[in-house]
Amino acid sequence: MAVSTNVMAQDRQLFTIDDLIPGGKTYYSLVPENAYYTWWGNQLLKQEVERVMKVDADGKMDVLFSLADINRWLRLAGKRELRHLLYTKFVFADKTEVLFDLNDEHVAVDWTSGEVKSYGAIKDGSENADFCAANGMTAFTVAHNLYLAHPDGKVSSLSLDGSLDLVYGESVHRNEFGIEKGTFWSPKGRRLAFYRMDQSMVTTYPQVDVSARVAELVPDKYPMAGMTSHKVTVGVYDTQTLRTIYLDAGDPTDRYFTNIAWSPDEESIYMIELNRDQNHAQLVQYDATTGKKVAVLFDERNSKYVEPMHPIQFLPWDDTKFIYQSRKDGYLHIYLYNTKGEQLAQLTKGEWEVMSVAGFNTKTKSIVYTSNAIHPLQQNIFSVDMRGRITGLDNGEGWHNVQLSQSGSMMVDTYSSPTVARNIDLTPTQGKGKPVRLLTAAEPWDRFRVPEMKVGSLKAADGVTDVYYRLILPTDFDPTKRYPAVIYVYGGPHAHNIDASRHWGVRGWDIWMAQQGYVMFCLDNRGSEHRGLAFEQATFRQLGVEEMKDQIKGVEYLKSLPYVDADRIGVHGWSFGGFMTTSLMTTYPETFKVGVAGGPVIDWKYYEVMYGERYMDTPQSNPEGYAKTSLLGKAGNLKGRLLVIYGGNDNTCVPQHTLSFIRACIDADTYPDLFTYPGDEHNMMGTDRIHLHNKITQYFNDYLK
Amino acid sequence: MAVSTNVMAQDRQLFTIDDLIPGGKTYYSLVPENAYYTWWGNQLLKQEVERVMKVDADGKMDVLFSLADINRWLRLAGKRELRHLLYTKFVFADKTEVLFDLNDEHVAVDWTSGEVKSYGAIKDGSENADFCAANGMTAFTVAHNLYLAHPDGKVSSLSLDGSLDLVYGESVHRNEFGIEKGTFWSPKGRRLAFYRMDQSMVTTYPQVDVSARVAELVPDKYPMAGMTSHKVTVGVYDTQTLRTIYLDAGDPTDRYFTNIAWSPDEESIYMIELNRDQNHAQLVQYDATTGKKVAVLFDERNSKYVEPMHPIQFLPWDDTKFIYQSRKDGYLHIYLYNTKGEQLAQLTKGEWEVMSVAGFNTKTKSIVYTSNAIHPLQQNIFSVDMRGRITGLDNGEGWHNVQLSQSGSMMVDTYSSPTVARNIDLTPTQGKGKPVRLLTAAEPWDRFRVPEMKVGSLKAADGVTDVYYRLILPTDFDPTKRYPAVIYVYGGPHAHNIDASRHWGVRGWDIWMAQQGYVMFCLDNRGSEHRGLAFEQATFRQLGVEEMKDQIKGVEYLKSLPYVDADRIGVHGWSFGGFMTTSLMTTYPETFKVGVAGGPVIDWKYYEVMYGERYMDTPQSNPEGYAKTSLLGKAGNLKGRLLVIYGGNDNTCVPQHTLSFIRACIDADTYPDLFTYPGDEHNMMGTDRIHLHNKITQYFNDYLK
Repeated sequence: MAVSTNVMAQDRQLFTIDDLIPGGKTYYSLVPENAYYTWWGNQLLKQEVERVMKVDADGKMDVLFSLADINRWLRLAGKRELRHLLYTKFVFADKTEVLFDLNDEHVAVDWTSGEVKSYGAIKDGSENADFCAANGMTAFTVAHNLYLAHPDGKVSSLSLDGSLDLVYGESVHRNEFGIEKGTFWSPKGRRLAFYRMDQSMVTTYPQVDVSARVAELVPDKYPMAGMTSHKVTVGVYDTQTLRTIYLDAGDPTDRYFTNIAWSPDEESIYMIELNRDQNHAQLVQYDATTGKKVAVLFDERNSKYVEPMHPIQFLPWDDTKFIYQSRKDGYLHIYLYNTKGEQLAQLTKGEWEVMSVAGFNTKTKSIVYTSNAIHPLQQNIFSVDMRGRITGLDNGEGWHNVQLSQSGSMMVDTYSSPTVARNIDLTPTQGKGKPVRLLTAAEPWDRFRVPEMKVGSLKAADGVTDVYYRLILPTDFDPTKRYPAVIYVYGGPHAHNIDASRHWGVRGWDIWMAQQGYVMFCLDNRGSEHRGLAFEQATFRQLGVEEMKDQIKGVEYLKSLPYVDADRIGVHGWSFGGFMTTSLMTTYPETFKVGVAGGPVIDWKYYEVMYGERYMDTPQSNPEGYAKTSLLGKAGNLKGRLLVIYGGNDNTCVPQHTLSFIRACIDADTYPDLFTYPGDEHNMMGTDRIHLHNKITQYFNDYLK
Repeated sequence: MAVSTNVMAQDRQLFTIDDLIPGGKTYYSLVPENAYYTWWGNQLLKQEVERVMKVDADGKMDVLFSLADINRWLRLAGKRELRHLLYTKFVFADKTEVLFDLNDEHVAVDWTSGEVKSYGAIKDGSENADFCAANGMTAFTVAHNLYLAHPDGKVSSLSLDGSLDLVYGESVHRNEFGIEKGTFWSPKGRRLAFYRMDQSMVTTYPQVDVSARVAELVPDKYPMAGMTSHKVTVGVYDTQTLRTIYLDAGDPTDRYFTNIAWSPDEESIYMIELNRDQNHAQLVQYDATTGKKVAVLFDERNSKYVEPMHPIQFLPWDDTKFIYQSRKDGYLHIYLYNTKGEQLAQLTKGEWEVMSVAGFNTKTKSIVYTSNAIHPLQQNIFSVDMRGRITGLDNGEGWHNVQLSQSGSMMVDTYSSPTVARNIDLTPTQGKGKPVRLLTAAEPWDRFRVPEMKVGSLKAADGVTDVYYRLILPTDFDPTKRYPAVIYVYGGPHAHNIDASRHWGVRGWDIWMAQQGYVMFCLDNRGSEHRGLAFEQATFRQLGVEEMKDQIKGVEYLKSLPYVDADRIGVHGWSFGGFMTTSLMTTYPETFKVGVAGGPVIDWKYYEVMYGERYMDTPQSNPEGYAKTSLLGKAGNLKGRLLVIYGGNDNTCVPQHTLSFIRACIDADTYPDLFTYPGDEHNMMGTDRIHLHNKITQYFNDYLK
């Protein structure tokens, strides 16, 4: 696949940086048109600013209710009014109630009667609100304590001793293992499972708020690789007995409790438990009433690591069976199990990966999911039945996302491709019905001088594996000239840069740089996502080493191009990409003339336990790997110009990374440059992001142009 | 005075940066030869590595004892040996004992008998050791508590509750008002006065140590302008009664207790007390036995500020009279008072300042001091008798420092001038005796291609005042070329840059830059030291404003020079000079193309109470002044390239200054550059200082050359 998208015309306009970078004044006017759809049970709704529409299977729309209706009813009930209907929720498939947040209150309006109903007041400053449609309660946290708001307006406390040291109802394990929240309602709303994390034994990283009158300490608990980690337990609150029990999982020291799931009857909790070395996972069933361990359903082991990311999901039509997603055959696939822990079937199989499970079609008893089975760069929608028969549900091109109806018989398919800005189709997931087009967005870049983009593949440094690259030619490219080239790199796990979505997933800054006269290049090296376990684990215990070798293959390709000036090659990346940039600048100092590294990892010993030890093990057990990948020892190799940028309050790659590197360079008599965004965390947002990209561009213009 | 020093020869060698910057590998080999003299009563001694010599009035030397002697005696006594004799002390004028520190012990050796004697063990980790020759005790502090080491080896605690919040025996008021220590022995050794500072109510600035395994908080008490300040009291410990009393000075809130002095009979303590507004000082006498206030001897007021810097000194020949140094007539002069507080005489007078009082000549009943009476750029040695008759004691040129013998009849005069590297003379302070030359150091730069330097004066922006500048032409200057020019600036009080010492006091970096092809310029604007009160106070309540106007006069002069490229003018300064640099870059953005600001003040509200409020009053009482001088509001004016550098643990100009400016620039969409030296405080030392000056030079080479 080496497709070329060439939209060039001298009379079209040039981009401003505000057009291209999120946070720019004109950026959102250049995002392709969008429309917001949501399912009310099996009825599709379209959410607009001033009204909510019912959408028929043929795409015909009728007004369900208007903003004016809702606000009239809210006024009568003495409530504050809404400004738009885009954040409305339709969680009651059996009721004509629309739910939304009003200040710190969950309010529902019945659009047939106009009745306004409160689902309980949430405390000021609350976070992590988790509404349960089955019982109308909302779990929420304030200052690390867990509360329940009742529909009658009462609030009950589920914990009293919450603090920075002892955290209730919040996401744990630093959001690794697919954990994104800390509360889990049982299916019928009787029980609430929640995380409790004791991090009193974890070192405190001293972040500093310099915006206060006098700079203030902002303590943050940050467990660094090889050091003492937090201890997590799982509580279960019973809304009938009003009692909390804790799962009897044994000593939580150096263990991960992940992927909490409820049995449909609410009597069992299933959890995937992982050792600190992350090479042994167990699916464990607990009695939700007593907290006692019922059974270990099965184990999963890997010599490098297993990484459970998805809770088990019970089949809607059979409470004795569930699906489990695993990479145990080398790619992420769906397996069918029974509640005895017996594997009944591998439903998907092949040298490709399942990207997401969208849900179930209860009529055809099939699973709707997305995968890159068609092409490593694509994401398409499929269904698979219980016999493993797979059916493609989309047009087989580009990058698709899916919203499934309650029964799973219809879906909203939102997609783009290198030549499609955004289409939205309403499509049946069964039978012979055709998609109905809901939106065809115009390409907002059509009036601009978009540089030519090429996507292709190279052989990785192992000589075998295909890795994909994206090459962007300078705007108004002249093949007789020689241009400087800049590589944008990420290179870490759980991410990719090149795909078959709109404009090949290009970043706005790449376009901006192409317009400044740079050849822009990007390559998803081994270690990046969606290419299977071996592709990812090639980097194990020595992050950066193999990734750099693949990037150097990209450089060799770049240098083979007659219009690339081999003496003017730069590199830029953020986070893992900042680590890659700094690694490349100090490992291949003759290759790269200029680099800009943002929020970099400098030494994995400063990174956190969960992510870091998965790939690197601990500094104690893998001293060679930590030494080999540390950039502190390579600071003396720096020859080119390297600008390192960090968020002043980065709590992901803490400032200690960058500042230790700067110290190492000073001690080694090398001369990096530095910038910081005080008050920002790991990424710059809003106008800071514009400033950042002007700063990065200026650096390349100063030293590479 | 526009003297020119031109040492140029194409066959001489060029400097390396290591030759020119302290911390450089070869720097100390290019410091003019030195020799170390000390007085043992009225006997001059020369301290060498391997021996101590007696020096006669005619300069003839004899060995007093050798390192081998001392070490033989130390070995016999079972003590560790010394490596050199340079740190020996001769505090007992009446005994043949040499004193030195041996690990944490004060040890004396009698060089006639070889007897080795201990003056007490000091605790591990001690600081602020203060030995009393009269009683042989040493006061010292450990972890903010005050201790006494006795000659018999015992150690007693004078405080038990010392902490970061409550500090005993240390310097207070952030070393302002001439305070450099926290313990004050009475003349005969019976009593010890000491400072106690309660700073529990002062905000804690969170410094961070990024060199630890996980970055660690290093809390520092830092009272910012306008905010709650510390409370100081003065204790007096009696070595006979073993009791401590505190001076009954009243509520210490918002008051400064400065310049502690003892009466010769040890019965009284004199202290200069100042209000927080610093415009009213009182000399107060206390009874050292009871702590009761005895008398307020006199007041001194000034509409802007008074700044007492010198304790009163009693005349050795008359216990009823003392001298007091004050700028009350507009210049720092010496006044004679009696103990009733009556002014008996103004001993010195004129439009020049006393720089230091070296001591007394008890035979002629005169005071030996230095002043710039001969020329504002010079420091010469004089004596004044009790009738105000002044006698010059040196050659009338250059910059002299003086060490006076016990009786004051002889002095060691160490001096340099633009053409004298270092001379040391032994000179009588009375009679017709001639100086005896002890050392004539060769000029170590003679073999180098030293650029041409010119010193002269301009009219300040007030049109009246003379201000002095130093101009350095590029090495191998070619008058037909046009060169970029860089201004080095400090500009704040208590400092100057240009004087008549060796090479006009030039900084090594200026020479380095001249060698890179820059015209270097420096001007001591109004506000700088040694020019009198009106000159300094021109800046009151709006630091930077008048100073910048004077600097712009310097720029106008620079631009008038045919060999200066007016479009390539840069500026660099540190601390107050960093404030000046940033102020100039943002106030005169069309004038300065490139700047490098180090450890800058950005807003005086982030600076400390004592220094800051003296010149600026408080943010509450002078909001216009603070607003006008704050660089946060001027961040949007930045046009040229500005590099801001700070020590990562700067506890003088805390990092909040620089980081707030960077944040303001980001918000205003301007683009400064940044660098930091992690772990360093206000100034970079050792090899960091070399790195720093390479970094600064690189920045000018990148953008100004």
